[in-house]
Amino acid sequence: MHSATAFAPASVGNIGVGFDILGHTIDGPGDRARVRRIDAPKVRIAEIRNQTVALPTEAERNTAGAALIALREALALPFGFEVELDKGIPYGSGMGGSAASAVAALVAANALLESPLPHAALYPFALAGEAVASGGYHGDNVGAMLLGGIALATPERVLRVPAPATWHCVLVHPDAALETRRAREALKGAYALTEFVAQSAHLALLLCGCHLGDASLVRAGLADVLIEPRRAPLIPGFARVKQAALDHGALGASISGAGPSVFAWFDSLAAAIAAAPAMRAGFAEAGLASESFVSPVNGPAASLVA
Amino acid sequence: MHSATAFAPASVGNIGVGFDILGHTIDGPGDRARVRRIDAPKVRIAEIRNQTVALPTEAERNTAGAALIALREALALPFGFEVELDKGIPYGSGMGGSAASAVAALVAANALLESPLPHAALYPFALAGEAVASGGYHGDNVGAMLLGGIALATPERVLRVPAPATWHCVLVHPDAALETRRAREALKGAYALTEFVAQSAHLALLLCGCHLGDASLVRAGLADVLIEPRRAPLIPGFARVKQAALDHGALGASISGAGPSVFAWFDSLAAAIAAAPAMRAGFAEAGLASESFVSPVNGPAASLVA
Repeated sequence: MHSATAFAPASVGNIGVGFDILGHTIDGPGDRARVRRIDAPKVRIAEIRNQTVALPTEAERNTAGAALIALREALALPFGFEVELDKGIPYGSGMGGSAASAVAALVAANALLESPLPHAALYPFALAGEAVASGGYHGDNVGAMLLGGIALATPERVLRVPAPATWHCVLVHPDAALETRRAREALKGAYALTEFVAQSAHLALLLCGCHLGDASLVRAGLADVLIEPRRAPLIPGFARVKQAALDHGALGASISGAGPSVFAWFDSLAAAIAAAPAMRAGFAEAGLASESFVSPVNGPAASLVA
Repeated sequence: MHSATAFAPASVGNIGVGFDILGHTIDGPGDRARVRRIDAPKVRIAEIRNQTVALPTEAERNTAGAALIALREALALPFGFEVELDKGIPYGSGMGGSAASAVAALVAANALLESPLPHAALYPFALAGEAVASGGYHGDNVGAMLLGGIALATPERVLRVPAPATWHCVLVHPDAALETRRAREALKGAYALTEFVAQSAHLALLLCGCHLGDASLVRAGLADVLIEPRRAPLIPGFARVKQAALDHGALGASISGAGPSVFAWFDSLAAAIAAAPAMRAGFAEAGLASESFVSPVNGPAASLVA
């Protein structure tokens, strides 16, 4: 096989209380990568289609390119890769776009290896790809995309966190971009230990709720008291969108990744479907058009496409 | 029934990475409370035996007394309680002594009610008792004592976290006291977000490891990078004791509660038994006599005694 195409879904980074370490995928939008084996021992970005802003085409500065460079170097591959990307995730949306390009390219390139690796083994290369966009090694988006569903992702490892199939997510993406860099600047400064204790209690409740399938624990835990207060002012309409979700029975709602997209979890598909228009109305009141996605919390993993 | 006696076991507060929210009990040492119903609508501390420092005997300032006052007020009881305490946990040991007195008194008093409550329903009163000793509402010790095993305890709720029966803890108590107040002062100051992200990754790995029974996740997670570096200088010999545990295959080791006791987790009873003398030798090198306890991580809950 000399070329392969893969799809990586969008994802909700952080899941509110798991800053940089928790993420889950969304069924629907995503990025697609077509990767071709080339004789030249290098990685080339041949084309990027449907981009909302101009992304770097030097392989070293492109997340897909950097991921494949890391893969090539680690495996000492004698051949190279040429990549075409079809962006389905808007830039600066908080839906994991930079991660999805890296993961889609890796999954496609992996299929071109003599002995393809399990997805989890691609994690270090996906982290290296993500790092060129964000400047840090956080795997909440790439980890979820590689494994599917909810992932716990640390710099050293990634594992899947179980959750009931009935739990659903609404992700609302307003027609606005927020640069990750700017969203990270809002987090500068010192933190109090009491903030950490409250947030870590919420994180622990969320994780136990997922493992036990206990929605009441998630309802108690899915409340970001550390990051959200510092970033919410960057997102017009955030408070209204969140409140609309809670008014419709959400287990919790917060910022997806670095924003401006907002997500909410529900314990049924019906509740999620009912809440989505109300959440969009919250952005509309702030003058922002938006689109919404309803997905199982256990969203899909990245995969090869025909 | 007009009197009852209960025993509450010692506990490992914080479990390193769950500051103020995680704890587990230890099979062996503990406090005992004998509670008598009295006609007077008040709570009296009649006697405290085997105390290593003089503890408050005004009910309002004693953790057992304050817990029973909270119970009386919440249930609008027409009668009062008189309490005798037998301390089995030394003051300032980091083994949950103040919590154990409160929990033992509550479990005994509960048996004297017309309709005794489930242990989890005693949690708010135990928190109120613990607060008079520590000045804050953290239930890591009382929560574990009420439920047994590992507890996740937030100010609003407590639940048990499962763990394999084969996992064991070594708790080493040096012949030295460290006031919780002084240990808390070492935590003053500002914290960096990066510290919290690292610690929360460890907390998440520990919790997933417990739920999944995966010792490798606990080995990755049971490393306190937030609190331990600030408190370790208060504990002579700490680094040696910890290293001795790790050299004997510990999944991780850290400070029990506010210290100076040190705990380590092992994935077998045999490993724990082998490590205990080496850990004590670490304190001995620092000139401190010590005693050690080996217990399942799933230690007992507080209970009535004949």
